[in-house]
Amino acid sequence: MISSPDAPAANAFTLTLSCPDRPGIVHAVSASLVAAEGNITESAQFGSPETGSFFMRVDFTSPRSYEQVHTELAATASAFAMSWELHRAGRRTRTLIMASKSGRCLNDLLFRQRAGTLPIDIPAIVSNHRELEPLADFYGVPFHHIPVAPDTKDQAEDRLRALMAELDIELVVLARYMQILSNDLCRDLSGRAINIHHSFLPSFKGARPYHQAHARGVKLIGATAHYVTSDLDEGPIIEQEVIRVDHARSAAQLAALGSDVEGRALSKAVQWHAEHRVLLDGRRTIVFS
Amino acid sequence: MISSPDAPAANAFTLTLSCPDRPGIVHAVSASLVAAEGNITESAQFGSPETGSFFMRVDFTSPRSYEQVHTELAATASAFAMSWELHRAGRRTRTLIMASKSGRCLNDLLFRQRAGTLPIDIPAIVSNHRELEPLADFYGVPFHHIPVAPDTKDQAEDRLRALMAELDIELVVLARYMQILSNDLCRDLSGRAINIHHSFLPSFKGARPYHQAHARGVKLIGATAHYVTSDLDEGPIIEQEVIRVDHARSAAQLAALGSDVEGRALSKAVQWHAEHRVLLDGRRTIVFS
Amino acid sequence: MISSPDAPAANAFTLTLSCPDRPGIVHAVSASLVAAEGNITESAQFGSPETGSFFMRVDFTSPRSYEQVHTELAATASAFAMSWELHRAGRRTRTLIMASKSGRCLNDLLFRQRAGTLPIDIPAIVSNHRELEPLADFYGVPFHHIPVAPDTKDQAEDRLRALMAELDIELVVLARYMQILSNDLCRDLSGRAINIHHSFLPSFKGARPYHQAHARGVKLIGATAHYVTSDLDEGPIIEQEVIRVDHARSAAQLAALGSDVEGRALSKAVQWHAEHRVLLDGRRTIVFS
Amino acid sequence: MISSPDAPAANAFTLTLSCPDRPGIVHAVSASLVAAEGNITESAQFGSPETGSFFMRVDFTSPRSYEQVHTELAATASAFAMSWELHRAGRRTRTLIMASKSGRCLNDLLFRQRAGTLPIDIPAIVSNHRELEPLADFYGVPFHHIPVAPDTKDQAEDRLRALMAELDIELVVLARYMQILSNDLCRDLSGRAINIHHSFLPSFKGARPYHQAHARGVKLIGATAHYVTSDLDEGPIIEQEVIRVDHARSAAQLAALGSDVEGRALSKAVQWHAEHRVLLDGRRTIVFS
Repeated sequence: MISSPDAPAANAFTLTLSCPDRPGIVHAVSASLVAAEGNITESAQFGSPETGSFFMRVDFTSPRSYEQVHTELAATASAFAMSWELHRAGRRTRTLIMASKSGRCLNDLLFRQRAGTLPIDIPAIVSNHRELEPLADFYGVPFHHIPVAPDTKDQAEDRLRALMAELDIELVVLARYMQILSNDLCRDLSGRAINIHHSFLPSFKGARPYHQAHARGVKLIGATAHYVTSDLDEGPIIEQEVIRVDHARSAAQLAALGSDVEGRALSKAVQWHAEHRVLLDGRRTIVFS
Repeated sequence: MISSPDAPAANAFTLTLSCPDRPGIVHAVSASLVAAEGNITESAQFGSPETGSFFMRVDFTSPRSYEQVHTELAATASAFAMSWELHRAGRRTRTLIMASKSGRCLNDLLFRQRAGTLPIDIPAIVSNHRELEPLADFYGVPFHHIPVAPDTKDQAEDRLRALMAELDIELVVLARYMQILSNDLCRDLSGRAINIHHSFLPSFKGARPYHQAHARGVKLIGATAHYVTSDLDEGPIIEQEVIRVDHARSAAQLAALGSDVEGRALSKAVQWHAEHRVLLDGRRTIVFS
Repeated sequence: MISSPDAPAANAFTLTLSCPDRPGIVHAVSASLVAAEGNITESAQFGSPETGSFFMRVDFTSPRSYEQVHTELAATASAFAMSWELHRAGRRTRTLIMASKSGRCLNDLLFRQRAGTLPIDIPAIVSNHRELEPLADFYGVPFHHIPVAPDTKDQAEDRLRALMAELDIELVVLARYMQILSNDLCRDLSGRAINIHHSFLPSFKGARPYHQAHARGVKLIGATAHYVTSDLDEGPIIEQEVIRVDHARSAAQLAALGSDVEGRALSKAVQWHAEHRVLLDGRRTIVFS
Repeated sequence: MISSPDAPAANAFTLTLSCPDRPGIVHAVSASLVAAEGNITESAQFGSPETGSFFMRVDFTSPRSYEQVHTELAATASAFAMSWELHRAGRRTRTLIMASKSGRCLNDLLFRQRAGTLPIDIPAIVSNHRELEPLADFYGVPFHHIPVAPDTKDQAEDRLRALMAELDIELVVLARYMQILSNDLCRDLSGRAINIHHSFLPSFKGARPYHQAHARGVKLIGATAHYVTSDLDEGPIIEQEVIRVDHARSAAQLAALGSDVEGRALSKAVQWHAEHRVLLDGRRTIVFS
């Protein structure tokens, strides 16, 4: 990591990969990195006993170009049948945020993006309502009002897909977007759409969950951020948060506290995704945080 | 609270009550306390909008005897149709602990009781196995081995009931007791038996919950301490705790961490019950902690 | 609390009081409330053994006017030498926020106020810089730029005092305001100005605290919200929060995480103050949360 | 990791190392592991920008013997000027626990060791008092009473050193041992003695810290587990924990809650040390947890 004064300026990269576990993976990858004049600054590996998969994330610097580094790694990746990605550090994930009327999560994401702690660009906000348009305007993010009715749902998803294509969207964040996406869209967004929902111990099925939680007198309320799958709210979990509550809180106050927790869990999940710290291991995630 | 030098030594009491909410409750109770020369040291009240019940807990001192104070309060309690209890401070709740093979929760309770932070006496430990007998012996608590087989369950519960009667048991703590109590016993123990079980977000039904939690990659695991009802694991919640885990923990490690959290939640619930801080409001608890 | 159909509409009030502890306080207060046709919905009392003071907070409803209720309570308050306040529920605390360049805490407060979870009005934001003016504009709050230089400090504080008088300010929140207030102003604002600052275990003196915390490899970073006193950062603590960090976080990342925690602790402290849940007990606070 | 049926049974190892950061470290280490037929199951690396050091921890399996693996790694270690250790997985750290009268931390450690969640052996408990002897007896651990008086301190430390030598002690845990070790002993135990002490925000100097914390009305109390250095309570931090408290807790109750937190922080620190997850980076620790 200590560069000699006459070395060319180094670029920072992040490599993530997963593959069937077998001997020699780290050695092969590090050989490719040495060949690319790479210096590792932070790295983590994990072999999953259940799925027999191996996971690796490497932050490194190299004086070579992205293309040169990519080429060095490609042969190794191929030899080990890796799923892999090479990211330029500092390149921000192009993120589309969807929301409905509640602005808590959206406000959190926009503020953190602006403050520089969330490495994403937000070229678009999509909503089925108009309430959050002023917030989008304040942050200078184009706001797309795409209303959804039972008979226009297909059409609305077509507009969303078109927008994603046009804007090169890499990540979709459902920041309290209160419409259910179609199975087709969920499948197409697999691994690149993050949703947030409330979580309780015990869990409550059906409508008005905070009223149910209040009626049971729960002492903790929580939130789960997860990847979207067609199985509603059952996708791989990225992050969870809870806070303590007591009997004196009304259902409405629980819901307000819940939205705080949702904002925190969602922001963390988006940050970890955007920093390429989340890898999929079947139905669960490996988070190199 | 500042007693004059020649005042008789004051006794400390705790009063708890609940009744249908209407004007004048606090005034009537405080009038009775004034009549009993009582000085309030800590108190809390809460009116539950959902159930229309009013809850009150008062710590106070008085130079009068327990019987005298009781008499002063009885008329008020009757006039307002109160459920109420008057406790001598420092009188320890007679507690029977039931456990099976896992000693984590039992060890916590015994250690805290011995250290003086848990205001209970433990005249008996009941187990359907023998593994925990040495731990009971170390703390000098009589250990009762009551094995349970499908055809001896009634008999076992009869022995338990006899033991409870003989020892004047006021509270039963199920500290990882892995047998299901009969509906009759659950009903008879209503409000004076505390159980602990694991809790997750989302919750998992069926066997091997930590394996399920591991397979879903949960980021938090928790525990819920609750009063026993005939509806298994659905009784009024007293306390909940969680801790953070990550992908590298095996199902066995999750279970070990889970037992830590269970021990903490159960100890707190027992403490609050024994300090008369928990009142029942239908399916939920009011905890004046 | 269950009003008869023909009763006049009830108003909700909050009463807070403290006085030297002696028998009969609760009884006298509840007698006044009965005389005012008051119904208690939530209440808490606490006698402080150290200072010999008694503290009480009561939420109640009454069909009487504020003036009538106030009159009923005044005689009791006088008899017990109480410090006391009677608040109309729903009346929002008039709050002036001061900030410098960092917007995290300000953004939190503005969002929560707008969302209705923080019972305050914000008639003014004061800053010694201009960076946060657009945020104030977005929320429609008048922004007052009052620069501070060593030789203009008195003048700046005069402008602040004039603004507070003109706007009937009841609470000042220092939301990362990086100027030290004069001793005179601190004294005048005693009990009605809240500050936020970072907190660590162990604590670090002097400049660049997050660099010091990083150098020591702390595993938790925190924030403390407290009342302003002339003894810098040593006023009565209202709320504290922490989060977990690890060795891989840089000092800059620690500072960013720290500002999250600061925002949370400050918002809670402001909420509790505005809900009249915080009472002063010498150098410490009683928080009836 | 997937072994062929006729492969020799693999042994599990943990390698930890640190060295001056430069290119090729991971590659060289992984080459040695490949040469030793090693399969990595979990691994983490970190380059510390402040100290210019690189840290690595690798869990791996190999069919070779400890000596063979050690030989393969030794050349690489030498070439990169590494501080390094190779541990057989499952080999338990030989740990001597020192305590005085308070048994909370000791009880936690003994219970967890017995339960199998703490990979240590405890061949001796040393105390300057006799109160904890029965607890040691219950767990079958030899108890050594080494009283300490001002004029016998040297002698007491000589006995301790002799005991450590005789029992091949690798780790000393000060589990609320209320005597200050000499500078010489602290230096000799550097990196292999763990202490626990209370921590507050703000911190309090001098005697009776819980009384000071109570007088300031802190809302959180905590504990810090750290390596012993001659600079009292200022050694590299391994783990920190906090819990929430409120105004109603007395100083004695704060101290009881504090001992819970101390037990938790200390147990975690010992676990991580014994799992070879803690590496020293100057005044701070890298914890690969």
